[in-house]
Amino acid sequence: MPFIQIHLAEGRSVEQKRKIAAAVTADVSRIAEVSPDRVKIYFFDIKKEDMAGGGVLRADEH
Amino acid sequence: MPFIQIHLAEGRSVEQKRKIAAAVTADVSRIAEVSPDRVKIYFFDIKKEDMAGGGVLRADEH
Amino acid sequence: MPFIQIHLAEGRSVEQKRKIAAAVTADVSRIAEVSPDRVKIYFFDIKKEDMAGGGVLRADEH
Amino acid sequence: MPFIQIHLAEGRSVEQKRKIAAAVTADVSRIAEVSPDRVKIYFFDIKKEDMAGGGVLRADEH
Amino acid sequence: MPFIQIHLAEGRSVEQKRKIAAAVTADVSRIAEVSPDRVKIYFFDIKKEDMAGGGVLRADEH
Amino acid sequence: MPFIQIHLAEGRSVEQKRKIAAAVTADVSRIAEVSPDRVKIYFFDIKKEDMAGGGVLRADEH
Repeated sequence: MPFIQIHLAEGRSVEQKRKIAAAVTADVSRIAEVSPDRVKIYFFDIKKEDMAGGGVLRADEH
Repeated sequence: MPFIQIHLAEGRSVEQKRKIAAAVTADVSRIAEVSPDRVKIYFFDIKKEDMAGGGVLRADEH
Repeated sequence: MPFIQIHLAEGRSVEQKRKIAAAVTADVSRIAEVSPDRVKIYFFDIKKEDMAGGGVLRADEH
Repeated sequence: MPFIQIHLAEGRSVEQKRKIAAAVTADVSRIAEVSPDRVKIYFFDIKKEDMAGGGVLRADEH
Repeated sequence: MPFIQIHLAEGRSVEQKRKIAAAVTADVSRIAEVSPDRVKIYFFDIKKEDMAGGGVLRADEH
Repeated sequence: MPFIQIHLAEGRSVEQKRKIAAAVTADVSRIAEVSPDRVKIYFFDIKKEDMAGGGVLRADEH
């Protein structure tokens, strides 16, 4: 029952998420030896004003 | 200080969340023997294009 | 595909988690109108030195 | 590589998040003795209908 | 700055996590078009008494 | 009701967590204009074999 939360900066397309879901599920299923059906993924789109590194919002980076 | 994160496919009404909050708080309070006031719940609405099972987005399921 | 993360102060028994899992699944299934099989729950035991309220670790409360 | 998720009731401004990101990064960097660049923060705005305490949605509190 | 939390039932080896980290980072980097260096992954080992599906703890499944 | 999850590489002392809890609560309370009592923090110690950046486990970095 692997459960995976993927946080991405907003702006990725549904097609990108579709490909990520397929690839990540295949990897985890193969390596962890679980049925693909048991691999669950949730995506979270994070706005650039809602992420910070080094104390600076991504929205403020140049 | 139980803290509970509930991720649901989008589309549930405020009334459904109201009932879930009341019922889950009552359960956890009674069984874990903590005051209901200490039980905190956060809901997250997840779009069907942001959840996947078996490597397939929920938005793509038939 | 409701996914629920329940954080509890450490010290609850397996029997308490068993009862919470059964009760919370029944609530969410009934109110959100999803099959119980689709309700997944993960518990996280949090040490009292790893939780704080009001800026004070639970382990330091009197 | 400290990773911090901050859930706030919706309504905080970008300026408030900017200040929180700067202050929290400075604290964690200094106290945990890691480079500020390694401190990552994600904010989550939670609607008042999506948070509950004591079994009652924040949106329903008086 | 993709951030990924992977919850697995306990029992996976460090070698399995090593391979999952490499494969998932390569996938997300390639598909989301971000530098691999920006992809951060955290693993969480979950005990079978701490996961439930259908209201039943994994530790209780036959 | 700000809720904050802080993931740190294992090895920080209780004293470091005590100071982080106090400082972060003071910051968030002051900037977000909420009572300190409402600020809740949970720490998660992550083993170096359970974190990866750039596809490499921290435990494998030189």
